[in-house]
Amino acid sequence: MLTVFGSTALDTIRTPTKVLKDVLGGAATFAGISASFFVDTGLIAVVGTDFPKKYHNILSKYLDLQGFVVQKGKTFRYDGSYDKTLSTRTTNKTELNVLGTFKPKVPDSYKKSEFVYLANNDPDQNSLLIREFDNVKFSMCDTIEFWISTKRNSVIKMIKNVDAVVINDEEAKLLTKEHNLIKCAKKMMNWGAKYIIIKKGEHGSLLFFEDVIFPSVAFSLEDIIDPTGAGDSFAGAMIGYLANKKSTRLDDIKKSVIYGNVMGSFAVERFGLDGLLNTNKKKIENRIHQYQKMIDF
Amino acid sequence: MLTVFGSTALDTIRTPTKVLKDVLGGAATFAGISASFFVDTGLIAVVGTDFPKKYHNILSKYLDLQGFVVQKGKTFRYDGSYDKTLSTRTTNKTELNVLGTFKPKVPDSYKKSEFVYLANNDPDQNSLLIREFDNVKFSMCDTIEFWISTKRNSVIKMIKNVDAVVINDEEAKLLTKEHNLIKCAKKMMNWGAKYIIIKKGEHGSLLFFEDVIFPSVAFSLEDIIDPTGAGDSFAGAMIGYLANKKSTRLDDIKKSVIYGNVMGSFAVERFGLDGLLNTNKKKIENRIHQYQKMIDF
Repeated sequence: MLTVFGSTALDTIRTPTKVLKDVLGGAATFAGISASFFVDTGLIAVVGTDFPKKYHNILSKYLDLQGFVVQKGKTFRYDGSYDKTLSTRTTNKTELNVLGTFKPKVPDSYKKSEFVYLANNDPDQNSLLIREFDNVKFSMCDTIEFWISTKRNSVIKMIKNVDAVVINDEEAKLLTKEHNLIKCAKKMMNWGAKYIIIKKGEHGSLLFFEDVIFPSVAFSLEDIIDPTGAGDSFAGAMIGYLANKKSTRLDDIKKSVIYGNVMGSFAVERFGLDGLLNTNKKKIENRIHQYQKMIDF
Repeated sequence: MLTVFGSTALDTIRTPTKVLKDVLGGAATFAGISASFFVDTGLIAVVGTDFPKKYHNILSKYLDLQGFVVQKGKTFRYDGSYDKTLSTRTTNKTELNVLGTFKPKVPDSYKKSEFVYLANNDPDQNSLLIREFDNVKFSMCDTIEFWISTKRNSVIKMIKNVDAVVINDEEAKLLTKEHNLIKCAKKMMNWGAKYIIIKKGEHGSLLFFEDVIFPSVAFSLEDIIDPTGAGDSFAGAMIGYLANKKSTRLDDIKKSVIYGNVMGSFAVERFGLDGLLNTNKKKIENRIHQYQKMIDF
């Protein structure tokens, strides 16, 4: 079983072609649903009493919700705008709401999870929460600019406490104060994580383990509709694949990255969560096959 | 046999760690020397009477110089500075000198070349020169921002006259006025080229042919010393590999891109041309082997 801890949000996403208001989003929502195609996934997250029933129904269709809390108040809200190239996102507004006072707890039934994904939460909260699990075989975390800028030391401490870090290229540079991505990864490995996965958006990703570097391309797409949640879907697919295999072997971690690339490509093809909600196991395997054909030479 | 037409320059390269003054450079120098590891390569280029004997000796060691002209005046000079990340180059000065009045001619002994590479010259000159060859099987051109900004229609005409275009991602976007690289490539294929190769620096490249997209990663390097000439070395390796195989089969073009990635990685490892001058066939094959091991999953 896999546990995902992170945010469930009501997102307002402004793309050049369409504005979506208060749609279901959040790092843990994308990561959890992406992972659920591979393994049973439990979600630890909080929403407010304003959280729509229809979104609750979507979550319960894909995820175990024993760790999901409805708390008095409003749901976490995020509002962001993409530029016309869809490559740069500007944050217009972040309302923490119930997320600001949430005290996450691991339900007893999740404590035996061998695989745990800590989405871009407060790094101190992540470091505390990971200790509540009894038998973690593989833990992975993400982080974002906000935490790097406000709690860099806590981010570094969190990296010591997990097996793997999955992080954007720009954020890896910001965190490590290095320009070269190999140097970034080495620094994070020195801080204590064994595996580093640097996500590069349309340029794919780099996986690092000891002296091994495994670069992989993204699945090429002509029509990108909404990049929201692509990185979270990537991470969820990775850890979901590994949890299903109950493996932390390097060759399986490499394969999990390929699944990450493919699930990221589904995420960006439609608005919001629709890319993930419209895929299925057969489409995923077909795209893995296409991916392998694409890169073969 | 392969013919390369383009610039031979005296470069001043300013990197954060070192300034090189009046060193041997130019698109055709890098492309030609890179290609020469695979096939006999003839160079069509011009220098001035100030061109140092030691640089002439380097060129003659690697290249056939029947098309190489020493003209009265000064050699073409380029002066550029890299930022501290080595990812952005600013042009400080360009002195065309003898390049401004050069009337390139194809020596009779080159006219039977089946493979021709037109480096980033004046697109009208490229379009004229390619007609002087008797039996071209595969022609490839590059272009740069300067020509796109000043002679866009001539660039488009040139693309109609060649088999393949190799171009940087930013220049592809500028030329086609598209954001998505697949859309960029489709537009250039509509203009008449059969193969499009979009170079993405540290992120590798994308090859396009009909409905096929072949993305490939760059060879990962921790210490990049000087990116000058990497793209030219990439292109030279591609067409040199193909000329050696006398092939324009898609699977060989894919392989040529891998050789392009590898030769680009040698180019950036040392200052100026030194990366290319310090490699050899054995090192190239070793790195191809490392590359294949690196991407395997």
